[in-house]
Amino acid sequence: MDVFETVNTILAVRAFQSTPISSEQIKRILESGRLTGSGSNQQPWHFIVVDDPPELAKLAELAKSGPYIAQAPVAIVVVVDRTALAVSDGSRAIQSMILTAWSEGIGSNWVGYVGMKGVNELLNIPENLDVLAILPFGYPVKELGQGKKKRKALAEVASHGKYGMHLG
Amino acid sequence: MDVFETVNTILAVRAFQSTPISSEQIKRILESGRLTGSGSNQQPWHFIVVDDPPELAKLAELAKSGPYIAQAPVAIVVVVDRTALAVSDGSRAIQSMILTAWSEGIGSNWVGYVGMKGVNELLNIPENLDVLAILPFGYPVKELGQGKKKRKALAEVASHGKYGMHLG
Repeated sequence: MDVFETVNTILAVRAFQSTPISSEQIKRILESGRLTGSGSNQQPWHFIVVDDPPELAKLAELAKSGPYIAQAPVAIVVVVDRTALAVSDGSRAIQSMILTAWSEGIGSNWVGYVGMKGVNELLNIPENLDVLAILPFGYPVKELGQGKKKRKALAEVASHGKYGMHLG
Repeated sequence: MDVFETVNTILAVRAFQSTPISSEQIKRILESGRLTGSGSNQQPWHFIVVDDPPELAKLAELAKSGPYIAQAPVAIVVVVDRTALAVSDGSRAIQSMILTAWSEGIGSNWVGYVGMKGVNELLNIPENLDVLAILPFGYPVKELGQGKKKRKALAEVASHGKYGMHLG
């Protein structure tokens, strides 16, 4: 699937088939994160692959907004340095990873912001690093192409020349 | 170009041909930003297309790290709300945009962090919004596929099961 089609069709997936993700695919997703550009090439990230079902269940319990992590065959926990650009760089890496996955038919969703401190402890993550996201990955239960994005119109989020000027 | 190939080959571009970018391509790049997922679907972003050469020269002067903006046929200034997730969401949108561009042979680079306050004034951006990046877009002077990424090895940035455990 080409990039624009991938960006255009990708949806958050919160229900996964039990079908495993091959290790080649997991590797390609990880490589997509690793190869992403970052400010001053700092690469302020670390990716932890979790595929043990009891561990996935513990992650699901810690991340209140992501109970569906427990059903996913695999999750990648994205950890970043506590530096100014790390949230930005980590978010770019996450976007690369979920786009690569979707282009191969694999769904994901960004789970984060609540309960992440507990994840540090569970996965032996040093205290000076933050968990930016847990990304469960799996084949979606719903067929791809079902579902629609809800987004503001382009005219509402884009301008030409100066802020607020109509995009021709 | 498929997603993984795009992620794998994309490089920062800091020298552009004067060849214009078609309005269809600019629209597709903007759409890639607009269609990106965001926390709670807040879409905390705004994209300003700048294609007037004197304005591009002024942007280049303000953004000390991006003198090459002046050569680009077009730049998109990415503006975000001052909310907790906006940097993260805006960074994801930027990644979608630069990947879509690269897949069509168009290069870019994230310019930001220094001099952005002046951009608010230049482009009439409300004071409650931050300029996250200026993205110049253009056909690269160097042929695509030239140049190599410098990244840490996968074993250094990825673990299996727990932080620091060897990725099999």
